[in-house]
Amino acid sequence: MNDALLTRLQELRDLAGVINLATWDQETYLPRKAEAARAAQLSTLQGLYHERLIDPRLGEWMAQATAATPDELATLRVLRRERDRAVKLPSRLVKAIAEAQSVALGAWREARARRTFAPFAPKLAVLVELRREQADALGHDGERYDALLEGYEPGMRVARLTPVLASLTTKLRPLIAAIEAKGPPRDPLAGKRFPVDDQWAFTLEVLQAMGFDLEAGRQDRSIHPFSSGLSATDVRLTTRLFEEQPWSAIFGTIHEGGHGLYEQGFSPEHFRSPLAQSPSMGLHESQSRLWENLVGRGRPFWTFFFPKLVARFPTQLAGLSVDDVLASVNKVERSFTRVDADEVTYNLHIALRYELELGLVRGTLSVADIEEAWNQKTRALLGLEVTQPVEGVLQDIHWAWGEFGYFPTYALGNLYGATLYATAARELPSLEADLARGHLLGLREWLREKVHQHGARLDAEDLVRQVTGHGLRDDDFIAALQARYG
Amino acid sequence: MNDALLTRLQELRDLAGVINLATWDQETYLPRKAEAARAAQLSTLQGLYHERLIDPRLGEWMAQATAATPDELATLRVLRRERDRAVKLPSRLVKAIAEAQSVALGAWREARARRTFAPFAPKLAVLVELRREQADALGHDGERYDALLEGYEPGMRVARLTPVLASLTTKLRPLIAAIEAKGPPRDPLAGKRFPVDDQWAFTLEVLQAMGFDLEAGRQDRSIHPFSSGLSATDVRLTTRLFEEQPWSAIFGTIHEGGHGLYEQGFSPEHFRSPLAQSPSMGLHESQSRLWENLVGRGRPFWTFFFPKLVARFPTQLAGLSVDDVLASVNKVERSFTRVDADEVTYNLHIALRYELELGLVRGTLSVADIEEAWNQKTRALLGLEVTQPVEGVLQDIHWAWGEFGYFPTYALGNLYGATLYATAARELPSLEADLARGHLLGLREWLREKVHQHGARLDAEDLVRQVTGHGLRDDDFIAALQARYG
Repeated sequence: MNDALLTRLQELRDLAGVINLATWDQETYLPRKAEAARAAQLSTLQGLYHERLIDPRLGEWMAQATAATPDELATLRVLRRERDRAVKLPSRLVKAIAEAQSVALGAWREARARRTFAPFAPKLAVLVELRREQADALGHDGERYDALLEGYEPGMRVARLTPVLASLTTKLRPLIAAIEAKGPPRDPLAGKRFPVDDQWAFTLEVLQAMGFDLEAGRQDRSIHPFSSGLSATDVRLTTRLFEEQPWSAIFGTIHEGGHGLYEQGFSPEHFRSPLAQSPSMGLHESQSRLWENLVGRGRPFWTFFFPKLVARFPTQLAGLSVDDVLASVNKVERSFTRVDADEVTYNLHIALRYELELGLVRGTLSVADIEEAWNQKTRALLGLEVTQPVEGVLQDIHWAWGEFGYFPTYALGNLYGATLYATAARELPSLEADLARGHLLGLREWLREKVHQHGARLDAEDLVRQVTGHGLRDDDFIAALQARYG
Repeated sequence: MNDALLTRLQELRDLAGVINLATWDQETYLPRKAEAARAAQLSTLQGLYHERLIDPRLGEWMAQATAATPDELATLRVLRRERDRAVKLPSRLVKAIAEAQSVALGAWREARARRTFAPFAPKLAVLVELRREQADALGHDGERYDALLEGYEPGMRVARLTPVLASLTTKLRPLIAAIEAKGPPRDPLAGKRFPVDDQWAFTLEVLQAMGFDLEAGRQDRSIHPFSSGLSATDVRLTTRLFEEQPWSAIFGTIHEGGHGLYEQGFSPEHFRSPLAQSPSMGLHESQSRLWENLVGRGRPFWTFFFPKLVARFPTQLAGLSVDDVLASVNKVERSFTRVDADEVTYNLHIALRYELELGLVRGTLSVADIEEAWNQKTRALLGLEVTQPVEGVLQDIHWAWGEFGYFPTYALGNLYGATLYATAARELPSLEADLARGHLLGLREWLREKVHQHGARLDAEDLVRQVTGHGLRDDDFIAALQARYG
C-alpha cells in the first residue's frame, strides 16, 4: 500500500476516534447549553469523514494499491466495502434521510407523549420509503433488506437469517412454557435499597476482575449506558445507577465491559487501521452478551462475587444465599418491553421486529397496518395483549432513527455469544472452576486470542466458523438456556 | 459573504472547538495509555484545520467576498490575518519547527533532571534559528520579533511595548523596596490543612458568584490549571487542589474563571464565527488577571467571602480576621520563579524574559550566553543570585515549546486588566460596595458589554482605547498596586 493511502486510512481512523470522543462527551460531561454547538461540531466532523472517504483520489490510490500481506488485503476489503456504500449514495438521498430522521425523531417523541401512534406514522412512512430507495441505490439481489442489513452485519443475508430466527422462536416457546410451569419468578432482593457509591465500587471491582484495563479506558455515568472505542488504548464505558435496582448498574457494566474488552483487544499492529474494529455489530454484541449472560448470570460467577457483594451490602443481603442472587438475576417473565426482557424471552422481541421491518422494507406490510401487526405478533409470540402503543410499536427509538436491519444484530449477538462461550468451555476445561474462583482472565485471554485481536480481518460468521468449527446456529444458545432454566 | 465562505468559516470554528475538546480531555480524563492515540488524533485534526485554512479555494472565496456589515468586515480581517500567516509559512519550515520543538522539549526535561543547561542549549539554538527564519518568512519592518509577537498579540510592536515595560520596571523597583522596608511578609494560614473537597466546594461558590454559567461550562481537576472555550456555551475550566495550599485552587479558579467569563461572553451572533474569540492573548489574560488580582486580592471581595471561607474551614480560621486573609493572599516577596511570583514582582520576571528573547531573535544575544545573561538580569532586576539553572534559565517551558513573543502577553494582561478595572470603577460608582456584598455580576455585565461581546471585532489595544479612552499604559496598574501596598 502506498503512503498516501496509508495516511488517509490513519486520518479516517483518527477522525472516527474523535467523533467517538465528541459523542462520549455529549453523553457524559457536555454542559446542558452546549447541545447546538456540539451538534454542529459533530456534523462538521462527520462531513469531513464522508468527504475524505468518497474522495476520488482515495479511489485511485486503492485501485493502484497492491496488498503485500493478508492484513493489507483485509484492509483494502474493509475499506472498499465502506467506501462503495458511501459512494453509491447520492448526496441528495443522504441529506433527505438525515432530515427525515430528525423529523421522525420529533414525531416519535410527540407520539409517545400523546400515547398515540398517529403523529409518528406518516414520518415513519417517509423513512421507510427513503430506506427502500437507499437499498436500491446500494444494490441487492432482489431482497432490499439485505442491502440494509449489510450496513450492520456485512455478509449476512435474509435467506440465511430467517430460518435461524424461525428455529430459535420455535424452540424458545416451549422452553418459556416449561419455565412458567414451575411457578412465578421470585426476587429476594426486590424493594431493597443499595447506595449508589457502593454499587459503583462493585462495578469497578467486576471490571477489574474481567481484565478491563482502566489505564486504557474508563467508566463514567450516563443516562443510557454505552461503550465507545476512541482507540484500543482508550475505551470508554458508561453505566447508570439506581438505588433500588442494583442489577441495572452491575449488568450494565458487565455488558459494556464485554464490548470494552473487545475494543481493548484489537491488535496493536492495527493501530490507526480499519482492521481495529469489529467486523459486525452482531459480533460486537456477542461479546457483551457473552459476559452479561453466559458469565454474569451463571453460578460460577456468583460463587466468587456473592461474598464480595455481601461485603458491600451486608444489611441488604443478610440471610440471603447465592441461590437468592441467582433467582433475582435470572427471572424469566414475558413482558412487553424489549429492553427489560430477560435472556430467554428477549429474542422473541427481536423476531417480532425482524418480521415487521422485513415486511416494511419488502413492501408487503404498510406503515398504516404496523401497529395492528405489532399487537397481533405480540399476542402470537408472547401471548400478551398490548393496550397502549408506548408498550408496543412506539417502544423503540430505532425506527425513529431510521434504522432498519439493526434489530437482528442483537439476536446474532446472543447466538454468536453462546456459540463462542460453548467453544471456550470445551477448550478451557477449567473455565467454570476458574470463574468460580474469580479468575476471569483466562476467558478474556481466550477471547482475545480467538476473536478480539483479529478485528475486522474476517467477516463475523467466517471468524465464528474459524473459532467454533461452524457458522451461525441456535443450538448452543438453546443448550445454555436449558442448562440454566431447564 | 457567499455561502461557501461562510460554511468554511463555520467548519474551521467547529474544528477549533473539537481540537479544544481533545486537548481538554487529554488533560482531564484521557486514560494513561492513550497518549499516543490522542497525539495522532490531535495531529490529524490540526492537519485538517491547516489544510482547509490554506486551501486556495478559500483564498478565492475571500477575494470575491464583499462585506455587507461591520462584523463581516471584521470577520474577513481576522480570517485574512490568520490565513496569511499560515500561507506564508513553507510546509518544510512548519515541519522543521514541529520536530525541533519535540526534540527541544525532551532536551529541556533532560536538562532539568540533570540540573544543567548544557543538554538544552544546542536544541534551543536550533529553535531560535528556525523562529528567526519563520519571522523572515512572515515579513517584518526590520524587527523580527514583531513578526512573532503578532502571532500572540496582533497589532502590538516592539517599538510600542519596550518603553511601556521599561517604564513599568522603573516604577516597580522603588515600590518593592518600599514594601520590603515595612518588614517581612506574614502568612497567618501557613502550615494549616484545608480538606480538598471543601476547597472544591468553595471554588464553585466563587464561580457562581462571578456569574460563570455552569450550564454553559464546567470545572474539572487537572495537573496544570487552564481554561478552554469549545464554544461560548461550552467553556471548561480546570483547577488543582493541594491540602496545604488553599490559595492554589481558589486563585486558580478565579483566574481561569476570568478567562471563562470572557469565552462565555462572546455574542451569540458570533456563534461559529471567528469573531467569537479574543483579539489577543494579552486581552484574554487581562480578564483572568483582573478577576484574580484586582478583584480576588482586594478587601471588598474578602469582606463578602471571608465569612463563607470561615463556614467551610472554621477550625483552620479560628481567631483569624479578614486582615489575616488579606495578608496571606497579598504577600510580596522577590523570588526566582515566575509562576510563584506575587502581582507586584511578577512583571519583573516578564521584563527579564522579554529582553532576553528580544536579544535572541534580533541576534544580539547568543544561546551560548543566555544562562549568564539570565543570571545577570536576575541580579539586576530582582537582586537575587541564581545558583541553579532550574531556578533560572530552565524554569519555563515556553522556550522549549519554541514560543518566543508569548511572555510579554502576561504583562499586557496585567496592564490591560488594571486599566479596564480602573475604568469600571469610574463608571460603576458602587463597584467596590457591590463586591463587598457579593454582587459580582455588575462587574461581569460591564465587562461583557464593554469587552466580551465584541470578541475579535477590534484589535486589543483599539478595544481598550474604545473602552478606557486611552491605549496601553502602566499608570492604572501602578496606581492599583500603590493603593493596595503603598
